[in-house]
Amino acid sequence: MATDQVPPIADELPTVEPGAPPAHIEDDAVHADDAGYRQPQVDAEALRRLLDGPHREARDLVRANLVEHAQILLDQEQLTTAEFRERVKDVVLTMARTGQTGMGFPEEYGGGGDIGASVAAFETLALGDLSVLVKVGVQFGLFGGAILQLGTRHHHDAHLADIVSGRTLGCFAMTETGHGSNVQALGTVATYDVEAQEFVITTPDDASRKDYIGNAAAHARLAVVFAQLEVAGERHGVHALVVPLRDEDGRVLDGVRIEDCGPKMGLGGVDNGRIWFDGVRVPRTALLNQFAEVTPEGRYLSPIDNPNKRFFTMLGTLVQGRVCVGGAAINAAKVALAIAVRYGARRRQFEATSPGEEQVLLDYGMHQRRLLPLLARTYALHFAQEVVAEQLHDVFSGAGGDEHARRVLESRAAGTKALGTWHATRTIQECREACGGAGYLSENRFAALKADTDVFTTFEGDNHVLLQLVAKGLLTDYSGEFEDMDQLGMARFVAGLAVETVVERTAVHKLVQSVRDLLPGGDTWDQEAGLLDPNYQLAMLRFREEHMIAGVARRLKRGIDRGMDPGAVFSRVQDHVMAAARAHTERLVLEAFVQKTADLPDGDLKVALNLLCDLHALSVIEADRAWFMEHGRLSSARSKAITREVGALCRKVRPLVVDLVDAFGVPPEVLRSPDLLGGPTGSGDRAGG
Amino acid sequence: MATDQVPPIADELPTVEPGAPPAHIEDDAVHADDAGYRQPQVDAEALRRLLDGPHREARDLVRANLVEHAQILLDQEQLTTAEFRERVKDVVLTMARTGQTGMGFPEEYGGGGDIGASVAAFETLALGDLSVLVKVGVQFGLFGGAILQLGTRHHHDAHLADIVSGRTLGCFAMTETGHGSNVQALGTVATYDVEAQEFVITTPDDASRKDYIGNAAAHARLAVVFAQLEVAGERHGVHALVVPLRDEDGRVLDGVRIEDCGPKMGLGGVDNGRIWFDGVRVPRTALLNQFAEVTPEGRYLSPIDNPNKRFFTMLGTLVQGRVCVGGAAINAAKVALAIAVRYGARRRQFEATSPGEEQVLLDYGMHQRRLLPLLARTYALHFAQEVVAEQLHDVFSGAGGDEHARRVLESRAAGTKALGTWHATRTIQECREACGGAGYLSENRFAALKADTDVFTTFEGDNHVLLQLVAKGLLTDYSGEFEDMDQLGMARFVAGLAVETVVERTAVHKLVQSVRDLLPGGDTWDQEAGLLDPNYQLAMLRFREEHMIAGVARRLKRGIDRGMDPGAVFSRVQDHVMAAARAHTERLVLEAFVQKTADLPDGDLKVALNLLCDLHALSVIEADRAWFMEHGRLSSARSKAITREVGALCRKVRPLVVDLVDAFGVPPEVLRSPDLLGGPTGSGDRAGG
Repeated sequence: MATDQVPPIADELPTVEPGAPPAHIEDDAVHADDAGYRQPQVDAEALRRLLDGPHREARDLVRANLVEHAQILLDQEQLTTAEFRERVKDVVLTMARTGQTGMGFPEEYGGGGDIGASVAAFETLALGDLSVLVKVGVQFGLFGGAILQLGTRHHHDAHLADIVSGRTLGCFAMTETGHGSNVQALGTVATYDVEAQEFVITTPDDASRKDYIGNAAAHARLAVVFAQLEVAGERHGVHALVVPLRDEDGRVLDGVRIEDCGPKMGLGGVDNGRIWFDGVRVPRTALLNQFAEVTPEGRYLSPIDNPNKRFFTMLGTLVQGRVCVGGAAINAAKVALAIAVRYGARRRQFEATSPGEEQVLLDYGMHQRRLLPLLARTYALHFAQEVVAEQLHDVFSGAGGDEHARRVLESRAAGTKALGTWHATRTIQECREACGGAGYLSENRFAALKADTDVFTTFEGDNHVLLQLVAKGLLTDYSGEFEDMDQLGMARFVAGLAVETVVERTAVHKLVQSVRDLLPGGDTWDQEAGLLDPNYQLAMLRFREEHMIAGVARRLKRGIDRGMDPGAVFSRVQDHVMAAARAHTERLVLEAFVQKTADLPDGDLKVALNLLCDLHALSVIEADRAWFMEHGRLSSARSKAITREVGALCRKVRPLVVDLVDAFGVPPEVLRSPDLLGGPTGSGDRAGG
Repeated sequence: MATDQVPPIADELPTVEPGAPPAHIEDDAVHADDAGYRQPQVDAEALRRLLDGPHREARDLVRANLVEHAQILLDQEQLTTAEFRERVKDVVLTMARTGQTGMGFPEEYGGGGDIGASVAAFETLALGDLSVLVKVGVQFGLFGGAILQLGTRHHHDAHLADIVSGRTLGCFAMTETGHGSNVQALGTVATYDVEAQEFVITTPDDASRKDYIGNAAAHARLAVVFAQLEVAGERHGVHALVVPLRDEDGRVLDGVRIEDCGPKMGLGGVDNGRIWFDGVRVPRTALLNQFAEVTPEGRYLSPIDNPNKRFFTMLGTLVQGRVCVGGAAINAAKVALAIAVRYGARRRQFEATSPGEEQVLLDYGMHQRRLLPLLARTYALHFAQEVVAEQLHDVFSGAGGDEHARRVLESRAAGTKALGTWHATRTIQECREACGGAGYLSENRFAALKADTDVFTTFEGDNHVLLQLVAKGLLTDYSGEFEDMDQLGMARFVAGLAVETVVERTAVHKLVQSVRDLLPGGDTWDQEAGLLDPNYQLAMLRFREEHMIAGVARRLKRGIDRGMDPGAVFSRVQDHVMAAARAHTERLVLEAFVQKTADLPDGDLKVALNLLCDLHALSVIEADRAWFMEHGRLSSARSKAITREVGALCRKVRPLVVDLVDAFGVPPEVLRSPDLLGGPTGSGDRAGG
């Protein structure tokens, strides 16, 4: 059983005091909210400490660096691409000198030896310019991380100190034009020449050119190149090698061809490029040999026999990048909300309540509906990200580094990255629209936020592919077969099991009895469990998850049993597969939020976070209430009651919103938006005159 | 009764042959599609003629101009802002010389005298660079349109020929920093000086500076300025005046201050600016006096007594801009789909069906689910836009220009603009993500498409405000009270009626009996109406619309009857108001699509469009199936059947997709995307090697 995956809450559900009276079924009319309700006050500073969590120092160091380099947000608009790339590089190197970017590396190479702090620092960096963020991610996360994780002492001694300090800049040359998500099909070849004891790196065709490689077009001197390893005529799958690209003066070396990817939607400060290799020779020791080795005489050795398993083990080191991107996306969403919520709390438009004075936008029900569930979800994802970052720290610090824990982490990171990055795209868009035409001006940050984060949903693993990874883990319980399986294999594997076996393997299964107790079905239970009871909310998400996983297993099995082509079966079940993976991740997110609030001491902060947690939980159920009705777990009366309760919760959260976004701790210097946050806001706003 | 609003279909529902066997309830397993189904072939050229409609010549002229100026799509990436603005201006002026941009003006001033053609031309222009589109919209639509619609012979003779030719560039100075959607609250004042027989234009405070004004920062010599008209100490509400901004040499005139809005998310070729007026004097005849006049001796005269009604009548002339923006957004979505669908039909990734060959993206069920309902909806919106453009032509050509028809048009234009622009935002986003990292490169058009169209949802009327306008019309049946009413007024007005009265006033009401016949409720009717029966699909949307309108009326009435503040009541009902307006517009969109296909002669084209129409209709119902279940109009079994049918329809549409996007007639030169459409696409794609 995947016990690591289930937080303590699963066994002992917390007793939560929601801080609000139990849900009641309002009648269809509008009436005043519960008279006895006492509105909590939020201490924004205390809440910020809670959000900052255990790595507050790392976050504050980054905030100070962001303020010092706030000018880069203007440079991004004003400099040419070539100039801005140099500026971004300089800022990255200056930040590196403060220790900010090396926190995840061993202390002996000048790093901080604290992976948790390094994730916190990276996330916080996302409050500022995102070209800086991505440049840091490429240099220290992908390039440095690959040398650290895939290399051995030899490579560490040769490179890490220079990477941490920024003396050596490098890139991570994995993706190829024709091979994006399907890394196993890469075309670049590294052939071992036993005479010379060298590898020869070759790009066989344009589909196999390295593409979108950050740092490649201008700055990288070295590359970690992923290529098909060929020894004595035999292919051993994808491996990584350290390959020089440029000399000390920045000239591209013989045999290497580099082309600029050209203008992009955003991230103008990152020099993405394409790379071709024409018989480039590197020494035998250039192979990053943590998981495989080629002896001088040309013998291939690996402690992992199965090539698929070896491949997925190597790729598993990418998990840190995914955790970081997910966290960064959530923080980018915070910037958008900090601007749009503050603007919505002061901008007036139309006389709605009393003649002569225009109404504040956030006092409109629709405006609350647009922004406040997104605010609640940002909190939920923040706490879910905190859990996954802790798991990453434990696994990569050796405290919980067994294989099963790694796979659980990979799945959780994949799901959180997918949900976090989609949330950022959606939130930034809604916040932009909620600021009207002003939101379109670059000085108000949305332009860069939108353009720069847009690629988050498809880089470091395309979100749809990542959700398939999550589903694979659910269906196989992260078993030994997990790594040795493509989509076809998964369909066949699942088809070979009884559906019950699949369901029993899922982490959620042991919770099912309590779910059934809470959700007995039919209409009579409607009044029994309060909508604001977290046990009810979690039971709903757990039921959905288990039911969807069982449904996927049944459909795969039935299709294959009927003799359909496994690929065609998979294709038809694919949206169901995605839905199951989402449902699983949504459950993890809600559990993290419920747990966090349950652990708080009684007081206004707890009351306020419970409001947000309820708003998030009911918004999630509301968004999929059709599914719950279809599966007999929601009556139409209760479904409508949930919608009304979401509205009521929005009204209760409304007075807290400015404190809730203040607690994100976005330095005012990086918010910019002078007119939105301090300028003329409406004819009713005399301060604007 | 609002008979104009209901197309003929309402009285006599068409008999449609869906070209597919009746829907059947699949069991939960995957099985092969109906064996007897015959796949239609699509003649892309014939379909393109159908889509081009009656103004094919106008569209082809624009296509030719787009191809001639295709270089501008590269310029947008490569030039500085100042250079690009000049380039865009030059392209606009060159296009103007072909007659493309003046089609809506009277022939005596060099125009084409054909409003329908002018809308078709503008929509088609959206296939290319959108700075050019918006610059054309500002100059010929907003500025020229205001002079044409709000001015009289004097202004026409003075300006129109120069506007049509582009000799006089101007801007439309309505929006102010503090007054966006609430135009009635504008702060700029035009005071009549009876001695000098002049108006004095003044900006009283920064909240009243004109803001985001296209053409203002660099090119406009004249402005149509909207200001509070003050005569002899009395205010008469917002009126428009022609005010010079710059002299012949482009120098800003005394008393005028102009500031550049600075960098924006997109539309870099449009020079948006802010304008302040400090006692600027214009002659009495500068007032655009179609609807109001000030005599030399200072008497205010207007044929419309009620100031609110006068205001809304003047604003009604904006409807053409909204129709144009809605159509442009739909065409921008076509560009995104043309790229993503073609890419999805050739890009291969992962071995899914057979080992050794990677599978084409669009053969994955999830990829179909992501793109094909958006493709179907684009067709639906195209035909809905065709209807609204025809109504615009009729109303503004005088053929159907009574007040009621105008109001119906305004409502329909508002709804179509809102749905069309949101659809563009969503479609472009999904298409970008469906192209992975490649979608992020500027050469593949998504960067500019996203950035440039983003403002469409909030300019020419914020979508949420527009939907409120739609709802107001529904609740009041576009009655005389319609124009004399803000949100408060609407709430009070509706509260003063019996709910039945409101419902009877709605255009949909007379359809209700047939709706009830088709949707008798309960579970037994499940098998009776086929999911692919357009009568069933329309009945569902009509029922939803009527039920939502009645619900809004009931909630407004009940809240006010209970003594709640009308503003607070409105705020709480606001999301319901929006939903009703959306439901209304969705019904109009589907009716347009059903009618279009019903009118086609039998044949493959009809079969193919019926597939798309079914896919659209069922996707719309699926998206809101929770509501239908909550209101007893969908059993859970049938709800699941709809989801399965959407999947089955996607598989039937799949073989047609390339022809379906070819029929959009986007010139290859403006698609760009060399790698996506012709380069290396995957290791299984030998053409890419």
